[in-house]
Amino acid sequence: MTRILVTGGAGYVGSHTVLVLLQEGYEVMVIDNMVNAVLGSGGKPESLNRVEKITGKTVDFEIIDLMDLEALRRVVKTKGPFESCIHFAALKSVGESCQQPLRYYRNNGTGSINLLEVLGENNCKSIIFSSSATVYGDPQYLPLDEKHPTGSCTNPYGKTKFIMEEIMRDVCTADPEWKAIMLRYFNPVGAHASGLIGEDPLGIPNNLMPFIAQVAVGRRKALQVFGNDYDTPDGTGVRDYIHVMDLAVGHVAAVRRAKEDSFKGWKAFNLGTGKGNSVLQMVAAFEAAAGNKIAYDIVPRRSGDIATSYADCSLAATELKWTAKKTIADMCADTWRWQSGNPKGFAA
Amino acid sequence: MTRILVTGGAGYVGSHTVLVLLQEGYEVMVIDNMVNAVLGSGGKPESLNRVEKITGKTVDFEIIDLMDLEALRRVVKTKGPFESCIHFAALKSVGESCQQPLRYYRNNGTGSINLLEVLGENNCKSIIFSSSATVYGDPQYLPLDEKHPTGSCTNPYGKTKFIMEEIMRDVCTADPEWKAIMLRYFNPVGAHASGLIGEDPLGIPNNLMPFIAQVAVGRRKALQVFGNDYDTPDGTGVRDYIHVMDLAVGHVAAVRRAKEDSFKGWKAFNLGTGKGNSVLQMVAAFEAAAGNKIAYDIVPRRSGDIATSYADCSLAATELKWTAKKTIADMCADTWRWQSGNPKGFAA
Repeated sequence: MTRILVTGGAGYVGSHTVLVLLQEGYEVMVIDNMVNAVLGSGGKPESLNRVEKITGKTVDFEIIDLMDLEALRRVVKTKGPFESCIHFAALKSVGESCQQPLRYYRNNGTGSINLLEVLGENNCKSIIFSSSATVYGDPQYLPLDEKHPTGSCTNPYGKTKFIMEEIMRDVCTADPEWKAIMLRYFNPVGAHASGLIGEDPLGIPNNLMPFIAQVAVGRRKALQVFGNDYDTPDGTGVRDYIHVMDLAVGHVAAVRRAKEDSFKGWKAFNLGTGKGNSVLQMVAAFEAAAGNKIAYDIVPRRSGDIATSYADCSLAATELKWTAKKTIADMCADTWRWQSGNPKGFAA
Repeated sequence: MTRILVTGGAGYVGSHTVLVLLQEGYEVMVIDNMVNAVLGSGGKPESLNRVEKITGKTVDFEIIDLMDLEALRRVVKTKGPFESCIHFAALKSVGESCQQPLRYYRNNGTGSINLLEVLGENNCKSIIFSSSATVYGDPQYLPLDEKHPTGSCTNPYGKTKFIMEEIMRDVCTADPEWKAIMLRYFNPVGAHASGLIGEDPLGIPNNLMPFIAQVAVGRRKALQVFGNDYDTPDGTGVRDYIHVMDLAVGHVAAVRRAKEDSFKGWKAFNLGTGKGNSVLQMVAAFEAAAGNKIAYDIVPRRSGDIATSYADCSLAATELKWTAKKTIADMCADTWRWQSGNPKGFAA
């Protein structure tokens, strides 16, 4: 059996990816520091308990922080060998990163350095990295393809994603045995169709979809729409929303591609649908899925937000044999099933 | 008395700066991990023993690696309070950084994160950073001023300097009490006029001047000139060479500026002469200073090298009240005095 190490596997995209890995016959070892996840029974994250329930398979799990080099070394050495590592573990709030930049650089940057070092020592020289379209900064052209310049992001969170990509690029250049695939997500939304796992942000959601869902379920009064005077069809921001299950499948496609002899070195792939939807279009789609009106207020633009972003995903289609399959209606229906069944997320 | 913490103070630019700090009446505490310096008597780096001899003053010193957060915490807590920190400690070989990228990202990146965290905890929120013109990458225009875009460097060493600048920028944005001055050096050469301290690279020198000096003193047979087909007057690369004593004075000017109430936040300054000299011009100047012929071979261009680089230093002139004073003849004469008096550097 092929064994995969998943860092940050208790989180949103992580847990859905673990689910697909298990369904595809992989053995999975998850490490997570639990700063952004809820512990359930049996000392496991509740998200992974649910994944085990859905799949009928077990996930190996340890609470490990990537700052703890010795614990990391022990787990990679004794729980392997691993064919590949999918590296999700990172702090991910733009706003928080501006308040606590050193925490972000340390957690995301030093954490990745530690991980790469320990993987290399244990001869696991294949990594799939949870990157983000944020590395492109303000788009110079649309759709964004992988040749678009990276690195001009202005917040520490985005800079850490860019730096992590560059560190992995340099590691692959220095040692041709290394393979690294950067998956640049656009806007992950949705949940597994079971409604048992989904996005469970701490505090006030930073992203649109969990905010809409929390309004729909009565946890928040009204959605804040940040600006309706952008140069877009209805004036609200346009993004490329992608279903988290499509994303999860994309990770498994990347694991497979990295294993092929024809794949060498470092390469980045966009994961999106290639289509943009506005905030108000998403609100309307969610209302249709949930059968509820979503109250919203138009408030001023949020600094740093751009008008429009969507992906050219042809490289992933050609080389990873992957395309997003799910519709906006799927994304909304699945989010609603998760949120209405778990109004307070994993914290029962 | 005002106390300054100097990281990497046993090194080339560090030791010359410690000398000027002592002469200007500052108390100095140096920490250095000694990976790039020679230990002398009394458990101190030989460079600092010489600085003490020249100045008649003492330097407080401990061997500390910035990776050792607890040792760093202890020294900053018990040996302070410090008015400011001058942060030289970094690995600095472009070629080595391409071979060992994780070591460079960890040492330079994580090292700086640790330092900033510990300085902040101890309320020393003023840092002068040893940056480099390498952050500009391939010049889009000349002379290079501080508004030139940064971050497009292609080697890990250069990327770490850029990242360190960005981390400090973000720390200043998050906490307005922080002050950070980036000093972007052009090409430091020369030595203190006493001939007692100077540049003492490990192994084959990466930089022109120590290579010329080692040829002049008979340690190496011939200088390698990397390309004579650049678009420059004589075909060899043109750089902005600056005397290390001018640089050292620039650091003290930055310490003074950072102390002023009118200085806020993060700011970068070029330190150069504003004049470019070619490799062959430097060879000729060195021959004149040393009275020796310097044998050289023209070899192919080195990948990543650019044709021409020189600084616009008007911002440092206006705001730091600093300009370089020493001539190319000074740089060569002082290098020769150091190298001929210490043919094997500090290792007696």
